[in-house]
Amino acid sequence: MDAGVSGVAGAFDLASWSAERLARVEAALSEWVVADAPAGLGDAMRYAVLDGGKRLRPLLVLAASEAVGGHPEAALRSACAVELIHAYSLVHDDMPCMDNDVLRRGKPTVHVKFGQAQALLAGDALQALAFELLAPEGDAIAPPIQATLCRLLARAAGHAGMAGGQAIDLASVGLPLDEAQLQEMHRRKTGALLLGSVMMGAACGAAGLRARTSLERYGAAMGLAFQVVDDILDVTADSATLGKTAGKDAAQDKPTYVSLLGLDRSRIFARELLAEARDALEASALPDTRALQALATMVVERDN
Amino acid sequence: MDAGVSGVAGAFDLASWSAERLARVEAALSEWVVADAPAGLGDAMRYAVLDGGKRLRPLLVLAASEAVGGHPEAALRSACAVELIHAYSLVHDDMPCMDNDVLRRGKPTVHVKFGQAQALLAGDALQALAFELLAPEGDAIAPPIQATLCRLLARAAGHAGMAGGQAIDLASVGLPLDEAQLQEMHRRKTGALLLGSVMMGAACGAAGLRARTSLERYGAAMGLAFQVVDDILDVTADSATLGKTAGKDAAQDKPTYVSLLGLDRSRIFARELLAEARDALEASALPDTRALQALATMVVERDN
Repeated sequence: MDAGVSGVAGAFDLASWSAERLARVEAALSEWVVADAPAGLGDAMRYAVLDGGKRLRPLLVLAASEAVGGHPEAALRSACAVELIHAYSLVHDDMPCMDNDVLRRGKPTVHVKFGQAQALLAGDALQALAFELLAPEGDAIAPPIQATLCRLLARAAGHAGMAGGQAIDLASVGLPLDEAQLQEMHRRKTGALLLGSVMMGAACGAAGLRARTSLERYGAAMGLAFQVVDDILDVTADSATLGKTAGKDAAQDKPTYVSLLGLDRSRIFARELLAEARDALEASALPDTRALQALATMVVERDN
Repeated sequence: MDAGVSGVAGAFDLASWSAERLARVEAALSEWVVADAPAGLGDAMRYAVLDGGKRLRPLLVLAASEAVGGHPEAALRSACAVELIHAYSLVHDDMPCMDNDVLRRGKPTVHVKFGQAQALLAGDALQALAFELLAPEGDAIAPPIQATLCRLLARAAGHAGMAGGQAIDLASVGLPLDEAQLQEMHRRKTGALLLGSVMMGAACGAAGLRARTSLERYGAAMGLAFQVVDDILDVTADSATLGKTAGKDAAQDKPTYVSLLGLDRSRIFARELLAEARDALEASALPDTRALQALATMVVERDN
């Protein structure tokens, strides 16, 4: 095992690496998503956020930050901020005017539990809180880093990123997208925030141009792989394993990689994207990218 | 006329001062709220923003920035950012699960025109865009100013500000609030973003502690006055003058200053708040606060 070589996995234990970091993320989320927001709003916000989930985005932020020697508090705030954006998007997505989902991870969705108006407000307040976390008073985190993190998150979440991808998704139900259109939708809808997580982690340190460019390649490939695998699991996994309704995309006549490429070619595509992500890490010349590599592998090899 | 004395109105022409600044704000909004966001999202975002309105918040940002010699581009971006937050809050407020309004300024509301899902996404994307505007690439705007602006806007928009006030509003329909509770609701719901506009303008320059403290007093008094006058107009104005349905608060059994204090005492309270706002400007020792003073006067003396 040549663990010293950049990008090579070596004896890296993702489970214990993740467990230590997730404990910090959960504690920080519980502290920062305050229960004392008025009139039940705090309860709805906490319910939306403190419900488990894989926390892939926070782990990507922390892994990227560690790879570039990033500022630990900036990284922890960024990790929580991207998770708040992800959580708010799920709250709004689940609402009756969007996907009309009543269950998420086996629990009633926020609008079922707190009402639609409170769900709408909780999502809105979570988005604002994400930016608030990135711009704390004082200069414990250098203000230029704060500003860069706000910029990266705003772009990943907004019309050019996640929200734009959701709009394409809404408009594409029942339409035959070609592969370029499908990729463009996913690049925005899920890819932008996954890539954004990596780039925010990188922005917590002083990554050079080569490292930043490589991490951007890594984030783009890993983000797309995430969606390809999601499409595969929607067909191959059962609902209990997935923790959500399997077969939903096909039932809703949504375009997916499986409907476009078939199952076998989708699996090959996911492996190619994983190889591309690994190549990018090799090219970064960063001394230790094992966590990033293990996370990309997990994204492709997961069964839920 | 002693126009040189701090805080004294002198021969100040608010209409022409505003017209020149509004032209810049409208042009900037039209440039920055892009039409090319995908799948109709850009159209819904532009429809929500480029629809006239008084633009009180942008004018407050610009007036405060000019009073402290602020950075013009930072001020213009801040002016547009607060207006995007205001616009998104109206889009979400109008939705069926909230106030269920079908008309705003005589036009169909966003969800009537574009559907609820697109309205939800357009609001979400407008909030993200607000923060994106505050954190442009490069250092034409000093990064510490960018970070401060993001912090002020996030706090004004989030659970401690606007979103929190809306949650109190939702929970308070039909409940007898006392004056302290009513004030707390309005301090957050409308006051926080009005005060935030003033403080973001102040943050575009190098206001000293005395000026900042005074502007904070000004913003708090003016923000509350805005809501007291809103409550008065809901009772005294007709719908045509208001541009929205008059008598709506009473019809919805919402607590208001008029229902709590009566019309006469509400009018006296509004004048007291205006006097407090003017006192605060006097105390700021800033050389020219005429625009801020004229805007506070307009807030109290408006008829719509």
